[in-house]
Amino acid sequence: MVGFGAATEVRRVGEGRFETVLDGGYAIAGALNGGYLLAVLARAAVAASPHTHPVSTAATFLRVAAAGPAEVIVEPRKEGRTTATSLVTLVQDGRPTVDALITTGTLDAGDEPAWSGAEPPGMPPLERCAPFRPVPGARDFTDRLDLRFDPALMGWVDGRPSGRPEVRAWLRLRDGYAPDPYSLALAVDALPPVTLNLGRNGWAPTVELTWHMRAVPAPGWLAVHGTGRLLAGGWFDEDVEVWDSTGCLVAQSRQLARAPRTPE
Amino acid sequence: MVGFGAATEVRRVGEGRFETVLDGGYAIAGALNGGYLLAVLARAAVAASPHTHPVSTAATFLRVAAAGPAEVIVEPRKEGRTTATSLVTLVQDGRPTVDALITTGTLDAGDEPAWSGAEPPGMPPLERCAPFRPVPGARDFTDRLDLRFDPALMGWVDGRPSGRPEVRAWLRLRDGYAPDPYSLALAVDALPPVTLNLGRNGWAPTVELTWHMRAVPAPGWLAVHGTGRLLAGGWFDEDVEVWDSTGCLVAQSRQLARAPRTPE
Repeated sequence: MVGFGAATEVRRVGEGRFETVLDGGYAIAGALNGGYLLAVLARAAVAASPHTHPVSTAATFLRVAAAGPAEVIVEPRKEGRTTATSLVTLVQDGRPTVDALITTGTLDAGDEPAWSGAEPPGMPPLERCAPFRPVPGARDFTDRLDLRFDPALMGWVDGRPSGRPEVRAWLRLRDGYAPDPYSLALAVDALPPVTLNLGRNGWAPTVELTWHMRAVPAPGWLAVHGTGRLLAGGWFDEDVEVWDSTGCLVAQSRQLARAPRTPE
Repeated sequence: MVGFGAATEVRRVGEGRFETVLDGGYAIAGALNGGYLLAVLARAAVAASPHTHPVSTAATFLRVAAAGPAEVIVEPRKEGRTTATSLVTLVQDGRPTVDALITTGTLDAGDEPAWSGAEPPGMPPLERCAPFRPVPGARDFTDRLDLRFDPALMGWVDGRPSGRPEVRAWLRLRDGYAPDPYSLALAVDALPPVTLNLGRNGWAPTVELTWHMRAVPAPGWLAVHGTGRLLAGGWFDEDVEVWDSTGCLVAQSRQLARAPRTPE
């Protein structure tokens, strides 16, 4: 089993061209996790930039990515003193699989927020939280990711969805990889769809996901909190906030996804 | 004065190529409003798509756009049965000015939400709200847009910022143009920066803005509510929700912007 660092590695093969080998260990039911793919894209964006962090990533998921070789194309759109923006595309079998507009910048690890109105989610202590395996018995990305869920929001596991689209969990990588921009990309798309708590049990493919890195994360567990506002017309939104072990908001995301069609 | 419809018109001049004339009436202090530009991009995306609505727009603002001629390039990335995704670029003086990944789809005007957890903002009635002109005496986009602000969140006008990044207003176009997907694009970037209520009075350039159209809006005034979570490292986020006159959430956005450097 390769670690998260190696699984997201990109190798420069030309001006704005990178090769990578996508790791099937980050799949659920055969589809590679979107956050894992965004981590790979962020590595390529930063490798091609004079700046250090993927501050903003706005991605659309065009096709399902499979384990194995892929290319990442980084097309510079603007380079400035404090930021640079590129169109970053994951290409597999000659077709664009994920497109992302990524703006890189440099955040200062020592920076105190000038203002924060957000409160860390009231997670129960780790020992009162429980793991969950999406497909019982199958190997999936929970072999790589240690997720411990707040049991109060896991009623859907026993057919008792809470009726509110909300899920939260502690998260860390099992290989000991410490929180950094790339594991934040993974964290913003690591929760099961919040629509499970509305009794919608099917697959919920992400169409668009935007995430912002807001601070350099401290070592330790991350707390990941997902909520939704509206399920309408076959679409739902899911906001995820990621908090580090010191209680700082380190990443924010919103995705728009197709909802499973009918309650099952 | 041309109406909003004409001001956002695009004319097809080739496969995936459109011409437009940007209307200086949508500027504030010389810079064209980002939401106005996104309305123009959305028109081109829909014109080049088999679908009806700009469901998801993820945009990065690369350079300031000026009034006058511009081109819009629509590059298809994927076309499916229910959605199509394009990279849509506003080009001025031969340089990309705004890049947007736009996914079109078709929302049904009669659709009731399957679930909604969002509450319309508690706006005071229109007659207790007040207009505000960003640059007193100057002509700007408030000649086009009728914005009536909740006075409880406008303390910053008199040097008494509330200390919370929150602003809300009623909004309509003065020319009588009814709410539609394009005026929603305008609405998600029409408020003054929420950082004004943190005592930051400078210009706050948007770097990235993602907005989702969630429902077909009803005629009448829109209620527009902006809030922020974090101001850190020179960056802040602003979430905007747009509600129609029937109390439906019709659009959601988040932008990441550079904060004015120091309290003035």
